[in-house]
Order: sequence, then structure tokens, then C-alpha cells
Amino acid sequence: MIQKLIDAIKAKDAPVVVGLDPNLSFVPKHLQDAALDKVSSVEGLSDDQRALEAAAEAVWQFNKEIVDAVYDIVPAVKPQVAMYEQFGLPGLAVYDRTVRYCKEKGLIVIGDVKRGDIGSTSASYAKAHLGRIGVYGREIPVFDVDFATVNPYLGTDGVKPFVDVCNQCDRGIFVLVKTSNPSSGEFQDILTEGGVPMYELVGQKVCEWGAQSMEGRYSNVGAVVGATYPEQGERLRKLMPNTFILAPGYGAQGASADDLSSFFDEEGLGAIVNSSRGIIAAYTKDAYSSFGPEGFAAASRAAAQDMIEDLRRAIAER
Amino acid sequence: MIQKLIDAIKAKDAPVVVGLDPNLSFVPKHLQDAALDKVSSVEGLSDDQRALEAAAEAVWQFNKEIVDAVYDIVPAVKPQVAMYEQFGLPGLAVYDRTVRYCKEKGLIVIGDVKRGDIGSTSASYAKAHLGRIGVYGREIPVFDVDFATVNPYLGTDGVKPFVDVCNQCDRGIFVLVKTSNPSSGEFQDILTEGGVPMYELVGQKVCEWGAQSMEGRYSNVGAVVGATYPEQGERLRKLMPNTFILAPGYGAQGASADDLSSFFDEEGLGAIVNSSRGIIAAYTKDAYSSFGPEGFAAASRAAAQDMIEDLRRAIAER
Repeated sequence: MIQKLIDAIKAKDAPVVVGLDPNLSFVPKHLQDAALDKVSSVEGLSDDQRALEAAAEAVWQFNKEIVDAVYDIVPAVKPQVAMYEQFGLPGLAVYDRTVRYCKEKGLIVIGDVKRGDIGSTSASYAKAHLGRIGVYGREIPVFDVDFATVNPYLGTDGVKPFVDVCNQCDRGIFVLVKTSNPSSGEFQDILTEGGVPMYELVGQKVCEWGAQSMEGRYSNVGAVVGATYPEQGERLRKLMPNTFILAPGYGAQGASADDLSSFFDEEGLGAIVNSSRGIIAAYTKDAYSSFGPEGFAAASRAAAQDMIEDLRRAIAER
Repeated sequence: MIQKLIDAIKAKDAPVVVGLDPNLSFVPKHLQDAALDKVSSVEGLSDDQRALEAAAEAVWQFNKEIVDAVYDIVPAVKPQVAMYEQFGLPGLAVYDRTVRYCKEKGLIVIGDVKRGDIGSTSASYAKAHLGRIGVYGREIPVFDVDFATVNPYLGTDGVKPFVDVCNQCDRGIFVLVKTSNPSSGEFQDILTEGGVPMYELVGQKVCEWGAQSMEGRYSNVGAVVGATYPEQGERLRKLMPNTFILAPGYGAQGASADDLSSFFDEEGLGAIVNSSRGIIAAYTKDAYSSFGPEGFAAASRAAAQDMIEDLRRAIAER
């Protein structure tokens, strides 16, 4: 699967993934109103259920317009499942619908689920999100994304079931190594005996886990490394030469394209950079406000194009 | 919320939580067959959808019978969401239905979701599982459990939104400190500079996070400490005197009641012990096989009673 992602990045010359994290505050009012109208006639729902159905419908229309506006210029999308889970079952139905729609559009889908548990439980998550679940003699794909993000805190037996499913079903994972958030250093940067920070120990394990899932130069077992931590990114790029990096944090979280230049290999590959709010809520920013709420999807396309240009420039100028 | 859990443990003299982790292999064939019959007449489903609906229905009937058999002797249940997520939307609908049913029966529900992300995303998870989500002017509870488990790898800003919701909505969390699985030591036991293992640093943070959410002696911010690691449990009990412990690993994962005696405070409180397979799949074990598959729920009750007696003895004999 990692080779498929690399091919898609090359084809579009764009190491960019659009984070589909549709906080309802990003969804223009006209879509929220239309969604409420649409569900108002559905019978048998409580007022709370109707509101959740409407929120999910608004998110779906928002996602669809954005995907339609960007699918030809970016290789991948990354829906953040929390943004759908918060609307309950209607929200998760829209997560599923969004995943399917993006795949129909030829996009690679990274499910940002950050799951991780003891072995037998991780096996269920791995089947649910990347593999197939065996019931009544059938083998059924469930949420069926191409890549999922995985939390490493439980160690090898919590990650191995995901790697196994990657190998069985040609999928990939990105394991959290150094996350983009302000307090990620609290545990991840702690120096262990010998002076090695925890995130490097996790990075070493990611290399081990990935060694049995190689496709050419890179492994299907990748790493999440926050664009907001360029020094750690540079260090990890060297420490994990065969590990593809998913780098969140560009734009709204504060990282620039120049912060990211050391995340890439000498061919300008080896990493894909996520932006969520910076793209999907572009119309709310000064730079793209002329598009207006009705033009939110065109604003997203413009923001994605600007981000792609910015990264191409930073990679070329290294 | 922690006081409500303590009161329930006292009232039933049972520091025991039943893990509702219904792997389909635990569900007796007669329930699986009946579920398939029940959904066979539903129109408009693909064969895959029908199989997932049937699996979810089988799990629901399984859970319901077990809950009916144990609700008067245990204070709490802990559904593991992965076991429901693996069946997609029908599975998550049964997770929701199980949570609601258990609350109707007076049980405290610990949603074993192990969520954790950057701050804004954790806020969505916290609202989805413990709080209320604001949409269209309404404040709506979604999955609505009493406690949730939380992964600490992202540090304070990934955990704080859960603590905030605990304070706003009178809920609780259990943060993963030292997990029960075989490879938990890979990162959690790593010695940091100064010789303190990582899990102790996490434990210290749990105390800090919980300090603003106290109810009497204990905080609404608890910790997951695997019963399979009695030495670390004893150490953490002393390090975190105001932190309630959720201890998985009894029974099927290998921990005994005597391993757990140091997890409790001098009053025999301060911890609640989970067993999943050991109770819900008791009928498949030699000790309870006389109940047979038809008597699976009665076997679960017998196993829960035996576990309660075992823990009472171990606490009394300290």
C-alpha cells in the first residue's frame, strides 16, 4: 500500500493530505440549514436524534464539496474519526460514506483513528479499520480505509495485529512517534537512561515492526511525526530511513514548509504533510475570505494549491 | 462520579467489573443462529450487511442475558468498544444499546475506548463519550458512559479535555498507566534519566490531572494498572494515594486475587478489578462447563460470584 501512496504523490507532485476534520463550526451556515431542512421530514426521530442526523448530513455535504474540489490535485485525505464519532451513529455513517466516496474518487484514505490496545483487542480494531471481519462464514470489510494511525503506548503486542493485517490485506499504518501537539514532549521527549529520548525508542520499534512489511524503499509501517517539531523530524528521518512519515501540524498548528524540508528524502519523497483546518476552513481565513461561505470548496482548492506550491518550493530550495 | 462507583462497590461488597468484550467466538451457537433468523427477513440489506446485523444482534442478546444474570451482584460493567466497532455501524448501535441497558439496570458503565489525541480532537472524543455535543442549540449526550479509558501518550493537552468534561458533567476517566499486556513494559517500564520508569512519570501526571477533580479521598481521574504486574501495582498504589485503579488482567490474562491485594487501600477500596473472558465466556471453561452453552449466563453469574469471593478473601487475608 505504501507504494500506491508514493505513486499517487508522484503522479500529482503533491506530498499533501487533506485532513477531513469537519468541526461543525467550519461548516457554512447554508449547509447546516439545508441539512436541518432535509431531515425535518424524517419521522420517528427524537429531537436529539434529528439534530445529530442533521449535523451528520451537513458534514457529509461539506466533505463532498471539498473532495470534489480537491481530488484531482491531492493524492490522499485523512478523515479524523473523532469528528464523526462525536455525532454518534449518524456521524459514523458519514465517516463510512466519506471513506467510500473518497476511494471512488481515486483518493487514498488515511483513517486517523489512533487506536491501540492489548493484542486481542487491537486485532479487532485492525480488522474493523483495515482488514476484514469473519462472521457467518463471510469475510467482510468494515470501515475499510487504506491506512490507519496507531498508538504505540502498549508496545509490540498492541501494534503487531495491525502489521499482520497490513501484510494480509495490503494496507498500511502510521504509528504515533512524535506528535504535533504542544504537550507531546511530556512523555515523548523524556530522556531515557543512556540519553535517548522516548520518541527515538518508539521510532526504533517502528523500524523493527516495519521490517517485515517492505515495499521497495519504504515500509507499510509508517510514523506520525509532527511538522511542528522540525529538529526531531530531522533526527527521525535519519534514524528511520525506510519509514514513511505522516506529518501533521502544517498551517493552523504553526509549522511552515521550511520546517518540513528535512522530513523528505533526497528524491523529495518519504513524507506526506497534512493540513486540516488550513484547507477545509480556508474560507474563514483572511487570505481566502473573498470566496465567501458559498465558495468554501473553491477556497479549499486554492488553499490546497498554495500549500502544494509552498512544499514544492521548500523541497526544491533545500 | 468516582464516589458513585465507590458507593456501588461498597453496596455490593464487590470490587469487580464485568468486561463486556463479546468476541463472537464466545457467543453460543444457538444465539448466533437465532440472530441470523431474525435478520433474514429484513429487506434492502446486502449479504455482508445482513451478516453484520446478525452478528450485532447475537452480541446484544448475549450481553443482555449476561447483564440480567449479574447486575445485582456487581457494581459495574466495562464494554470494550473495539468488539462492537468490528461489526461496523450495527455493532456500534449495540454498544450504545448495551450502555443504555446497563445504566437502566443501575450499573456503572466504563467505556473502554482508550481514546486520546491532540487537544481539539480529544475534546470531541470527550464530548462523544462522556459529555454532550452542542448542535443546533441543543446539548446532546452521545455514547454517554460514566467513565472512559484514555491513552496518555500525547500528554496533558490530549488528556485535559477529558478532565474538563469530567468536571462539567460529573464523569470519570481511567488513564492508561501500566497496561496488563505482555509487552506493556517495552515503553512503560523504560527507565528515564534519574532511574524512574516511564509508567511512574505517567502516574505522577495522573495525580496532577486529577487534583482538580477530587470527590472525597479519590479523584475522578483514575488509572489503569494491569493486575498482571503486582509489583508495579504496589508501587503505583503508594505513588498515587488518591487515584482509583482500574485493574484488568484477572483470570484469563493470568493474574490472581493475591496479586491484586496491594492494589487496594486499607479499607479494601481504591481499586476495581476487571474480568472479561473469565466471566462472559465462563461456560467454555472446565470449571463451569456443566452449565452448557444454553446456561452461559448462569455460568457467568457463578464465575462472577467466585471472583467476588476470591477478591474478598484476598483482601481479608492481607
